[in-house]
Amino acid sequence: MTASALPAAKPGLLPLRVYYEDTDFSGSVYHASYLRFLERGRTELLRAQGVDQSEMFAGASGAASYFVVRAMSLDFLKPARMDDELIVETLIADLGGASIRMDQRILRQQDVLLAAKVKIALVTEGRARRLPAGLLAKLAGSVTEAS
Amino acid sequence: MTASALPAAKPGLLPLRVYYEDTDFSGSVYHASYLRFLERGRTELLRAQGVDQSEMFAGASGAASYFVVRAMSLDFLKPARMDDELIVETLIADLGGASIRMDQRILRQQDVLLAAKVKIALVTEGRARRLPAGLLAKLAGSVTEAS
Amino acid sequence: MTASALPAAKPGLLPLRVYYEDTDFSGSVYHASYLRFLERGRTELLRAQGVDQSEMFAGASGAASYFVVRAMSLDFLKPARMDDELIVETLIADLGGASIRMDQRILRQQDVLLAAKVKIALVTEGRARRLPAGLLAKLAGSVTEAS
Amino acid sequence: MTASALPAAKPGLLPLRVYYEDTDFSGSVYHASYLRFLERGRTELLRAQGVDQSEMFAGASGAASYFVVRAMSLDFLKPARMDDELIVETLIADLGGASIRMDQRILRQQDVLLAAKVKIALVTEGRARRLPAGLLAKLAGSVTEAS
Repeated sequence: MTASALPAAKPGLLPLRVYYEDTDFSGSVYHASYLRFLERGRTELLRAQGVDQSEMFAGASGAASYFVVRAMSLDFLKPARMDDELIVETLIADLGGASIRMDQRILRQQDVLLAAKVKIALVTEGRARRLPAGLLAKLAGSVTEAS
Repeated sequence: MTASALPAAKPGLLPLRVYYEDTDFSGSVYHASYLRFLERGRTELLRAQGVDQSEMFAGASGAASYFVVRAMSLDFLKPARMDDELIVETLIADLGGASIRMDQRILRQQDVLLAAKVKIALVTEGRARRLPAGLLAKLAGSVTEAS
Repeated sequence: MTASALPAAKPGLLPLRVYYEDTDFSGSVYHASYLRFLERGRTELLRAQGVDQSEMFAGASGAASYFVVRAMSLDFLKPARMDDELIVETLIADLGGASIRMDQRILRQQDVLLAAKVKIALVTEGRARRLPAGLLAKLAGSVTEAS
Repeated sequence: MTASALPAAKPGLLPLRVYYEDTDFSGSVYHASYLRFLERGRTELLRAQGVDQSEMFAGASGAASYFVVRAMSLDFLKPARMDDELIVETLIADLGGASIRMDQRILRQQDVLLAAKVKIALVTEGRARRLPAGLLAKLAGSVTEAS
């Protein structure tokens, strides 16, 4: 079993399926479940650019580091439902000195179900830190739009 | 066992505890877990004002109705951790024709950990509807600030 | 975007990735998260055999039906961690009159992290019912072992 | 705000409320959500006996330690629903050298919705260890039955 068993999506486009766990009694996807989907999208975008969050947390390049969400704005446009196949689209909108801004959408085919703006920061020893040059170099090329 | 076993908080102020389930490997509360806390706060505010979401969903006053989140903006200010005791503060900022705006905060003692603006709407048979007069009457008195 | 964007695993073998959402502050996967993984495995096995749970719930063949878990026994053998790529293996061990028994394992390469025995039943209008002939026919061929 | 804002339940009896987050599209509580409820019950029982898991993880008495679930058997007897008020009952059935066995039930008034047997172990530096004498002393008195 190698990584190839998981879908080799285009960078910034993660397909996923809606399961029981994601829904609530209204019959649709629970609103906080979309945040889990968005985080999968961000993690896969970072992975595709060579950013390994497990290594960062293990302190591969010094002290243990991890990303935190600083701010989000979310528009819930249409509901997703059990068994839906969705796409999480993730774009890096801006690389700041100490934070990254991403624009994300969740789509079902052509329908945009959710649009989000997300600001994340890197934390080391409990404090935000400037993004290291190595990280910026890996991400600089992906500050572009997906189709 | 009656309802009195649960905390009789002041309306708009829900105390809760952080458990394993709410945290992630960074050691802090997972960002989407705060949305679950906020929803508990909204549900308890509605309950305190006599709005029974189970009855609404069962169609007590006509067709099955339930609330959905339309939009949120979130500022994550400080992390919560395992075993923390938090307060979810929920204020109704505005009662619109077809939506309710709430201002919410999550606090640990005097510290504000998260601030949120939330817009919810009432859905019946898959479509947003105007807020019924009975619901507005129950909520009108609580468009005020908690301490 | 078609279903082909998701991994075309062998029936009964679902690959998945561990994300932030699945972990807890101990650094490993939260124990209840494995149940979500197991459910994805069961749902994908049913889908591979032509059992569409959304259609069943929509009442495609009469009254709305859905599966519930009746009993589980779980052995947690080794922890999974952030970014791990796992395989959920799902076998149908027995098709009873009113329930299905499945044997499931979660693996990381050759390591078995979790072993589970699960009994599910079909519920219609709040009550367990006998498994319909059409469902049994779809599943009968898969009461076999995966490699 | 002090701890007194949270319910002062009898040791081993934790009241809790079912929220949107706990349900799935079938209308009932999602099966894995009960495991979250059980864990809250175990954590509160430990807290009532003076066992502070945050301190243990911070390494208050040596190396960082935390509990893991080793095995569970679960009988799902009746469904819980949105807004239900439940009680999690937790009994210590046995204190072993390296593990603790607990019997747990989830009740809605007199109805038993779920019965579980749970085995947990203490992990330090990634390995199970014998339960320290101080921990055993705190728990020895609670190997008794709740009413």
